[in-house]
Amino acid sequence: MVDRDRLWDSLMAMGDIGGLPGGGCCRLALSAADGAGRDLFVAWARQAGCSIAVDQVGNIYARRPGRVNEAASVSTGSHLDTQPHGGKFDGIYGVLAGLEVVRALNDAKIVTERPIDVIVWTNEEAARFLPPLTGSSTFAGVHSAEFVHAIETVDGTRVGDDLRAIGYLGDEVPGTRALDSFFEAHIEQGPILEAESKTIGVVTQVQGLRFFAVSVLGEDGHGGTLPMTVRRDAMTGAARMIVALDELARATDDAVRITVGSLHVHPNSGSTVPGAVDFTIDLRHPDAATLEQLEQKARTLLTDIAASARLSIEMGLKMIKQPVLFDADIQASIARGAEALGLPSRAILSGAGHDAMNIAGLVPTGMIFIPCAGGVSHNEKESADPADLAAGANVLLHAMLERANRL
Amino acid sequence: MVDRDRLWDSLMAMGDIGGLPGGGCCRLALSAADGAGRDLFVAWARQAGCSIAVDQVGNIYARRPGRVNEAASVSTGSHLDTQPHGGKFDGIYGVLAGLEVVRALNDAKIVTERPIDVIVWTNEEAARFLPPLTGSSTFAGVHSAEFVHAIETVDGTRVGDDLRAIGYLGDEVPGTRALDSFFEAHIEQGPILEAESKTIGVVTQVQGLRFFAVSVLGEDGHGGTLPMTVRRDAMTGAARMIVALDELARATDDAVRITVGSLHVHPNSGSTVPGAVDFTIDLRHPDAATLEQLEQKARTLLTDIAASARLSIEMGLKMIKQPVLFDADIQASIARGAEALGLPSRAILSGAGHDAMNIAGLVPTGMIFIPCAGGVSHNEKESADPADLAAGANVLLHAMLERANRL
Repeated sequence: MVDRDRLWDSLMAMGDIGGLPGGGCCRLALSAADGAGRDLFVAWARQAGCSIAVDQVGNIYARRPGRVNEAASVSTGSHLDTQPHGGKFDGIYGVLAGLEVVRALNDAKIVTERPIDVIVWTNEEAARFLPPLTGSSTFAGVHSAEFVHAIETVDGTRVGDDLRAIGYLGDEVPGTRALDSFFEAHIEQGPILEAESKTIGVVTQVQGLRFFAVSVLGEDGHGGTLPMTVRRDAMTGAARMIVALDELARATDDAVRITVGSLHVHPNSGSTVPGAVDFTIDLRHPDAATLEQLEQKARTLLTDIAASARLSIEMGLKMIKQPVLFDADIQASIARGAEALGLPSRAILSGAGHDAMNIAGLVPTGMIFIPCAGGVSHNEKESADPADLAAGANVLLHAMLERANRL
Repeated sequence: MVDRDRLWDSLMAMGDIGGLPGGGCCRLALSAADGAGRDLFVAWARQAGCSIAVDQVGNIYARRPGRVNEAASVSTGSHLDTQPHGGKFDGIYGVLAGLEVVRALNDAKIVTERPIDVIVWTNEEAARFLPPLTGSSTFAGVHSAEFVHAIETVDGTRVGDDLRAIGYLGDEVPGTRALDSFFEAHIEQGPILEAESKTIGVVTQVQGLRFFAVSVLGEDGHGGTLPMTVRRDAMTGAARMIVALDELARATDDAVRITVGSLHVHPNSGSTVPGAVDFTIDLRHPDAATLEQLEQKARTLLTDIAASARLSIEMGLKMIKQPVLFDADIQASIARGAEALGLPSRAILSGAGHDAMNIAGLVPTGMIFIPCAGGVSHNEKESADPADLAAGANVLLHAMLERANRL
């Protein structure tokens, strides 16, 4: 069994790095704070007897040896980077639950057949640079390391230079490590487990995601003189589009999620009718066909609004993630772990994207959810119960141990 | 008569300082470019025989002596600062038309009874720091020089330090200079003169203005997990407010202007439901009672939208300018000037705020408008005809000369 207090103390210590006044955390990917968080994890993993490897995009692999070290590893992990106003648990829990599994195995002096890898994936959140899930998608062969190194961050730096600056530009070629399986423990980031008093969510799938960058172009004008009827006001046009997207979501079903999270106005001066507005659309649904329909409806809505307001519009698809189904055997092993430990569980869908999505196409993969207070995440108020955190880590330990002793 | 080509060449030379690729100009108040523009004006004014004085908030007074130098001056001017994507004429024309009046009087070897002051007012546009019309409102006693010096710019600097850095922190106490009258020549920044083929607008009044800072507060959340119905999405709420403000304007009358020119999203990350949005409202109308009603209607609309979306809202009134009526004698002298020169003219209302608003409460004040292409302003495409520019300067010369020879 894992040590509840040790896991909690580790989470709190990690949360102090980039800690925010409201109890949250700002540890943007490849920032100095992310570097410090990585250093702390590496120090803890080394203390727990792990060897450390880092790949060319900064993914960290902390390996606990097995009896057969040439065998593919049973792996687990998540990410240490956060949103700008993020919490202490989103991602971090998955990494430190993996570390706690290693520590618990050490306490029990268990030697597994297969080695165990605890993995820190680079830039899951994409708050400092795109695309999200950079590390795990590169591991899955979506991007080359060279492509990732050339990405420009919001601070105007290059990812390759940032990796070097914080000491995590490694040698290992992403995707070359042999994995037997991958587990990711995570807070639910939704309200279901808490509302139904279930401790463990056996994740069946991750919903699909399409991410768009929209540019609305009108014409700058003088806010005091230009009659309303002749304006080509990109701000008012964008506002109508955002309202229409919200109404599209509400008219579809309970599963759809549409978010306009980022928006920039040009020239953004109080007395000037804005000539241009850029914004993003994060569109999600568990069903691939519905997601496609939603994209087409959104395109029609926005194009019609732009035309009626004499604005031009570009709507570029920046990322597409098809819905991902997790491995049935892994789901079964997680459910068995919950049952063996006497923990109430249910099958659940993931509303958020996770690094496990990328690994699911490579090896048997699954996720374990635990409740978080009010379903709140990407928010300083994000919180989880120490007992639930330990329960999830125990299920992880159970499921990984079962797999790690099977050659 | 003024020299059309000399006036045009001066406008083009000034427009090169901070010139933009699209033909416009970015010379933000008290930036290095603004300093260079001021230096050019001062050099030209000295070449034209003027003495230069600078007051404590950077207003520049270029004085052409009269026969009776202790008499109050007949003054004219405007501003040299621009919007970020501004044009070459807004403000600049009023300053250089005044300089051209001085040059034309020199050419004709005319000595006026009263001295003439050509004035450059500091920070009309407020694109780098608030409030707009800083220089002229300080001259009118609205602010102290100490207050202005302590203002923080968007670059994090203080106005007092910026004035010193560009060499325009003067000694003269704002408002102590005796003016007989003030004239401001300006492009219309609206479509009326061009549409009606009138060369000269005799400005009767400036419409009233109220400027608001709105803060909408919801709660950050995860864009992939949080169901639409439980979100407290400040971005969608702000979008509904902006649409409602636009509809309020269109439902009122042709004279109302409502502009949301500036907006910031927090935390502004694509996959996070925004917890906070700040935006500005620029609300204008020529009638004081209607302006008051519009403010009350806007407050009700925004408060209702916030309540229905479970958002909180603050709507702070940051600036209020009552409608300003210009002096009847000055209007008559401008109309006489147009008539004497055979130029078609009409009475016209100013949609924009101008430095002349602040001087109108002190001494007889008026404005001369000339057409600009398509009514476009606060835009790189802003443009005016050399013949119209010269016509306006000739009317200015006529009206100022009439006044400057009357003790």
